[in-house]
Amino acid sequence: MDPRIREHAEVIVDHSVDLQEGDNVVVVAPSVAEDLVVALHELIGDRGANPVSLDGSTRAARAFMRASDPEDFELPSHQMALYEEMDAYIAIRGQTNATETSDVDPEIMAARQRAHQPMLDERLGKRWVGTQFPTQAQAQLAEMSTEGYENFVWDATIKDWDAVREHQEQLVEILDPADEIRIVSGETTEVTMSIAGNPCLNDYGEKNLPGGEVFTAPVPDSVEGEVLFDKPVYQQGREVNGARLVFEDGEVVDHSAEKNEAVLTSILNTDEGARRLGELGIGMNRSIDQFTYNMLFDEKMGDTVHMATGRAYEDTVGEGNERNDSATHVDMIVDMSEDSFIEVDGEVVQRDGTFVFEE
Amino acid sequence: MDPRIREHAEVIVDHSVDLQEGDNVVVVAPSVAEDLVVALHELIGDRGANPVSLDGSTRAARAFMRASDPEDFELPSHQMALYEEMDAYIAIRGQTNATETSDVDPEIMAARQRAHQPMLDERLGKRWVGTQFPTQAQAQLAEMSTEGYENFVWDATIKDWDAVREHQEQLVEILDPADEIRIVSGETTEVTMSIAGNPCLNDYGEKNLPGGEVFTAPVPDSVEGEVLFDKPVYQQGREVNGARLVFEDGEVVDHSAEKNEAVLTSILNTDEGARRLGELGIGMNRSIDQFTYNMLFDEKMGDTVHMATGRAYEDTVGEGNERNDSATHVDMIVDMSEDSFIEVDGEVVQRDGTFVFEE
Repeated sequence: MDPRIREHAEVIVDHSVDLQEGDNVVVVAPSVAEDLVVALHELIGDRGANPVSLDGSTRAARAFMRASDPEDFELPSHQMALYEEMDAYIAIRGQTNATETSDVDPEIMAARQRAHQPMLDERLGKRWVGTQFPTQAQAQLAEMSTEGYENFVWDATIKDWDAVREHQEQLVEILDPADEIRIVSGETTEVTMSIAGNPCLNDYGEKNLPGGEVFTAPVPDSVEGEVLFDKPVYQQGREVNGARLVFEDGEVVDHSAEKNEAVLTSILNTDEGARRLGELGIGMNRSIDQFTYNMLFDEKMGDTVHMATGRAYEDTVGEGNERNDSATHVDMIVDMSEDSFIEVDGEVVQRDGTFVFEE
Repeated sequence: MDPRIREHAEVIVDHSVDLQEGDNVVVVAPSVAEDLVVALHELIGDRGANPVSLDGSTRAARAFMRASDPEDFELPSHQMALYEEMDAYIAIRGQTNATETSDVDPEIMAARQRAHQPMLDERLGKRWVGTQFPTQAQAQLAEMSTEGYENFVWDATIKDWDAVREHQEQLVEILDPADEIRIVSGETTEVTMSIAGNPCLNDYGEKNLPGGEVFTAPVPDSVEGEVLFDKPVYQQGREVNGARLVFEDGEVVDHSAEKNEAVLTSILNTDEGARRLGELGIGMNRSIDQFTYNMLFDEKMGDTVHMATGRAYEDTVGEGNERNDSATHVDMIVDMSEDSFIEVDGEVVQRDGTFVFEE
């Protein structure tokens, strides 16, 4: 097997979930990722932990959902019992057909998700990581060769994550005490928002692998201005290009898109919170140098910022601050590599992708 | 997918484990069997049951075992919790390399098996089935073409199992009240044994799919005579040919083999019970017309009998009768298709493979 698969497994086991002797671990993976599953089992055995391997077949999930009556969905109490007794959870993505669930009624998917919510809550309370195995279908989605995509995935994930943490911590230290953020890119984006009192988190490859962003939540009513998102918004298998949002008092009061504007409209109309921002993130993983239609990577792309309409993460909202709530959380990306800057309380902290602490 | 895969799935769900609405079901399968897993998920969804799919990767199991310290093995309490909450268990075999665990120390395998024993006991207490997906590696082991092996597997498993039950019940009715069995084949096999008081079981595709045998336990001390086993005994990846056992007062007092006699000797020397019989079975599945080095099929081969040295199944030992106990249970097969007969209390019930109720 490619030696980088064993290196990837080491990052997962030793850095992301910090596996200990006697840990009960669950690995979920599609069969195409068998090499990584094998490499993980070598390490799990070596560390004296106990593995259970779940089959992440999207074909099986599709078959089950299409055959089910959505009113029948219930919490699978045996799987819940498995999760209650586990210490660490390793989720490996690796699609062999990125459009496998394209013919499953979204209502059915949503009903299953609701029934499974307690399982999600349970595993988010454990040590967990979501990561990627490079597949041909995802290379195709990214418009890359198979080998090119393999290089891309492993370059982005196999890193000295302690060094990444230290590097990113410099930005956290600037943002954590800050109030106003101003983001300007070309003629098309100029937006201000307050993050006062909201904690800034450093993502260095623990729960997400790759990691590589610093993120927080804007104060919901504080967002003012206009943003043109340079990268596609990929939702429900459709691509919204040239999405543009105009904010007043934190709310989207105008929007447009060059392609699939209706999808953007439907996102914003989901609920009240879907028209306000729930996240501001700054991508810092420069190994991610192209958009691949995979948010696990895209939102960490170096020299970008992303804003998500919808739900804010609990950890990013300070005590006493308002938390934006919504059923959705849709990340959208602005390229900051040229003719762009980020100002924090009137001081430029990044210009054309370069941070002040990098000069 | 081959339409027989969906038929196989229907037999599993509706006949073998009799899946009901709300059942918690666990499917364990290697990735090569994905089509069958998909077909099962369609039916599980349709029946309103809750699936969990375990990955049966032998490569991962090998990697884990080789990396482990056998003293570290413990019961994985998360997997145990999963099994405690399940109602039905579907195990699909389908090796992609029949010698995958050939470089795992048998001591390590045994240590893991001991640690996992409570899980085995737990799942044997649920509705369960073990079945086969046809793979190229198992076709190769059976010395068959891929298509030939597919036909073989599906012909043997997709049957009207209620009709099989009725047909086999005729033999159960003869054997259940019987005392002495005499089996004669050519010049090489003549053996008598008592089955007095021991129940005769009808295997019609429930826990084993394919099914197709009627079996019971001999009274341990009653076996007298000599048996030449015509089919290979396949143990620990090695093939014992021409195994010959001589019994006195139920005990093997002499043995030989044309090939790998040492393996046969080591089986018999496992413990006290390994030198006595624990099972007499009569194969009745005539779709199984050749030996394939896979006991799930071989022991049900039409026109054969098999005797197992070692442990007797609890259900086959009558109240107050002695149960042969051993760490081993090794099935060995005698061809009864020619120059052979089975006598029950002095009456011939099968001659050259044809039963009295078939004449």
